Amino acid sequence: MEQRILTYDSTLRDGEQSEGITLSLEDKLRIVERLDAFGVDYIEGGYPASNPKDIAFFKRVQDMDLKHAKIAAFGSTCKKGTAPEDDRGLADLLSSGAPVVTIVGKTWDEQVTRALMTSLDENLRMIGESIAYLKSKDVRVVFDAEHFFDGYKANPDYAMACVSAASSAGADSIDLCETNGGALPFEVEEIVRAVTEALPGQQIGIHCHNDTGCAVANTLAAVRAGATQVQGTVNGFGERVGNCDILTTIADLELKMGLSTVGPENLRQLTAVSQFVAETCNMSVPTHHPYTGASAFAHKGGLHASAIARFPEAYEHADPQLVGNTTRMLVSELAGKASLVAKAKSLGIDLSDKPEKTQEILDTIKEREHEGYSYEVADGSLAILLQTHLGRFKSHFRLESFRVIVDDYEDSGARAKDAMSEATIKIHVGDHRFVATGEGTGPVGALDTALRMAITEFYPEVAGIELVDFKVRILDENVGTDAITRVVITSRDANGVWGTIGVSENIIEASWNALVDSVEYGLMRMGR
Amino acid sequence: MEQRILTYDSTLRDGEQSEGITLSLEDKLRIVERLDAFGVDYIEGGYPASNPKDIAFFKRVQDMDLKHAKIAAFGSTCKKGTAPEDDRGLADLLSSGAPVVTIVGKTWDEQVTRALMTSLDENLRMIGESIAYLKSKDVRVVFDAEHFFDGYKANPDYAMACVSAASSAGADSIDLCETNGGALPFEVEEIVRAVTEALPGQQIGIHCHNDTGCAVANTLAAVRAGATQVQGTVNGFGERVGNCDILTTIADLELKMGLSTVGPENLRQLTAVSQFVAETCNMSVPTHHPYTGASAFAHKGGLHASAIARFPEAYEHADPQLVGNTTRMLVSELAGKASLVAKAKSLGIDLSDKPEKTQEILDTIKEREHEGYSYEVADGSLAILLQTHLGRFKSHFRLESFRVIVDDYEDSGARAKDAMSEATIKIHVGDHRFVATGEGTGPVGALDTALRMAITEFYPEVAGIELVDFKVRILDENVGTDAITRVVITSRDANGVWGTIGVSENIIEASWNALVDSVEYGLMRMGR
Repeated sequence: MEQRILTYDSTLRDGEQSEGITLSLEDKLRIVERLDAFGVDYIEGGYPASNPKDIAFFKRVQDMDLKHAKIAAFGSTCKKGTAPEDDRGLADLLSSGAPVVTIVGKTWDEQVTRALMTSLDENLRMIGESIAYLKSKDVRVVFDAEHFFDGYKANPDYAMACVSAASSAGADSIDLCETNGGALPFEVEEIVRAVTEALPGQQIGIHCHNDTGCAVANTLAAVRAGATQVQGTVNGFGERVGNCDILTTIADLELKMGLSTVGPENLRQLTAVSQFVAETCNMSVPTHHPYTGASAFAHKGGLHASAIARFPEAYEHADPQLVGNTTRMLVSELAGKASLVAKAKSLGIDLSDKPEKTQEILDTIKEREHEGYSYEVADGSLAILLQTHLGRFKSHFRLESFRVIVDDYEDSGARAKDAMSEATIKIHVGDHRFVATGEGTGPVGALDTALRMAITEFYPEVAGIELVDFKVRILDENVGTDAITRVVITSRDANGVWGTIGVSENIIEASWNALVDSVEYGLMRMGR
Repeated sequence: MEQRILTYDSTLRDGEQSEGITLSLEDKLRIVERLDAFGVDYIEGGYPASNPKDIAFFKRVQDMDLKHAKIAAFGSTCKKGTAPEDDRGLADLLSSGAPVVTIVGKTWDEQVTRALMTSLDENLRMIGESIAYLKSKDVRVVFDAEHFFDGYKANPDYAMACVSAASSAGADSIDLCETNGGALPFEVEEIVRAVTEALPGQQIGIHCHNDTGCAVANTLAAVRAGATQVQGTVNGFGERVGNCDILTTIADLELKMGLSTVGPENLRQLTAVSQFVAETCNMSVPTHHPYTGASAFAHKGGLHASAIARFPEAYEHADPQLVGNTTRMLVSELAGKASLVAKAKSLGIDLSDKPEKTQEILDTIKEREHEGYSYEVADGSLAILLQTHLGRFKSHFRLESFRVIVDDYEDSGARAKDAMSEATIKIHVGDHRFVATGEGTGPVGALDTALRMAITEFYPEVAGIELVDFKVRILDENVGTDAITRVVITSRDANGVWGTIGVSENIIEASWNALVDSVEYGLMRMGR
């Protein structure tokens, strides 16, 4: 039988420590729902003693109908000089109603004496009594052994005494924390092995940070040494350089080490979970993220793209479908014809019998990329470019001119508030000329409104095209505000999502051009 | 004596395969100069047979006065059925004038028969004869053993025969390539050890990709098994999820494994090199990048920040100064007073004896972050907020109103070109009222011009403030163009760099507010 490794997600607690991430209560509940559907075993929800949002979270989460995951509340051992039954923090943990309580305790002697400022014996008492008390209240107890690896390196006897105290007191799992993230896999493996050998039968877990770039490898090393619970956060979100990425770890355990976690069916949700949680955290999945990034199975070099067609396993370490991702051929300056033909095919355009056209299109792409375009992120604009070169593209409308006006007035001091934007566009659809004015708080919104107003009589389907994201990148920082601006718009309709791109020295012009491609490609997709 | 590990950088070759990276000839030369100053041993410049840019690169690089690094040209073994002296690719490599030639060859039996479509013996001939030929031309030869780990797992005898052929032919270094990135550290260590034991005295190198999130760990595992040359790219740039990050690897080798690479003096350039190369590649250093990211030594939780003040090694795995980075205290919803006091101190503002003010400021920050501000990236705006609360901030000017007009006309079809922007601002400096109009290709440039024009009489120092970067983020995607827009501007003067932030539903208003803070803080820094 395959060995099962338990997964313990800390996105809502340690992940929220990530610079730039702040989650609302609703965000946290949606992430719980998604992680539960994905098959994670434990979901650490936060600190019930810390703030009103977390208190409300533990209340609300009890009403959810989770199919598999158990919720954990996070806190500390009792305070020094305090009995567990008198400790406010432990009381808060218990009153959270969470079926799992995770308490962190110190295991590094110097941390005890210099940071906690108490005796080594008192710390052992705090660990042992806190766990025994919680166990008497019928919750599952995880002991997070803070700084365990640094502690073990400094004073192995004391570090072992701490986890032995936790084990004797009945901790269900002792999760060794590589708190500072400075360890390497070979050290982790050796130290975890010392613990699993000293405490046979005790469940041991592992919690790593990525400061040496080795969080996943450290976690896998711990599993090799006998740890059976892995902690981590979705996409590796977390303080400093982040926590162990639980998704990469799950994929490595399942696909590379033959161990079972969420199982092969759920594993296919990996990419979707990565995206969902990133979006909920208002972050992007890094393009280069292992397994789940948009580039994870993307191939750029002409050589590779043609080789993949012949022998896929030669250039892909795993079948992207197993993690819900797909192979992607990139169009770029380095790409050969084979890449472009494959990319066009994925957009439903057959270039296979048109070598001269393909070369012509490649030349155009090369020239446009030189100007600042990047078709890698703009399938919609690429499809328009391809169809234009094949003589099959017909604009749905033609611009005569537009004018955008933004008026703004004083706040207190020099900062402005209450801007109003107005866009007037003059446009031709066939023989008809339309003049439309749109208002909006922002100039792109005003243009968008005016454009839709102008064409809706001819193209009522435009109502089904929604603009979902708008990104701006300044391409050459050295020339300040005169730099080339690249705008990428993500749009969607009922059937999917597409990207379009506009490049100009003027952010409004770049936005307009990306907007036009968005609508043109949207109408094209709908068969107009 | 400390063991020295050679560093081989492939940013200009494998790194340029990264999605989104295209380097000009000048970019490549500037990166060479920077890596040489950093103390890298080998710099792989590109494919001299591939394109005019790389051919020009190898010509130009010969005129550079490198103090330490050697340039490597990259290519393949001779073609099947071709003698090395008749092979066009090898001729191109030699005529590049590079003192090091790196050739890739296959070592996975199935790759030879299915992708290269030749016999296993012919492949051995191609490897051996190519290397012997290059050696006869007096260049240093590195053999990149492609797919070595997959090859070894499939057919260890044949994979070993390939590297033995390379060794017998005189390869100076045999760099084992984990081409598909699917291996884990324990496998890499075992397989590299088999090679170093079979070929005593032969220099072995390692080249990894990050598809399992283990590239750095795999590289370190290879070093433990006897590899003495590490390949990688700056920031881990590269195809799919990227290559082994040479910077993280260097820091781990130096600081965690006690091995010597660039040496402790040069190691202090690590963060600067990371930033320089990223900027030259028109990428950002990921905030969460190990060692060199802006968050690598950033602390958010109130608990941690106060603990660090007492016992720094408790929360930092390494002294950030060793890699040219700094400890940073983050201000955020989760921050306690201690973090804010420490942050203010770093901005030269003493809050230590003002607990009530500190609480009031924390409340304001919390409220502003709720609106979409993020002071983590905007020290300039935070300093203004702090000084305002302390009653010490006095605006240098006051806005009455502004109007921005963008006019644009048809290109062919619906896309616009030749936008003109005009901004008129009405502003007060003391008792004086100024009206100024600025033109620009973009609206923010026009506003910037108008603002500088209006205040330059009173504040000629404004000429010393340069806007270097301008970032836009849409905060709530679900509401499309009406979403909150966050603009972050990076500015610099002769003494440093600062960030400012503006948040609004209108991108122009958000830009204006960030621009105002940029100028206000710039003048404040200059003592105005």
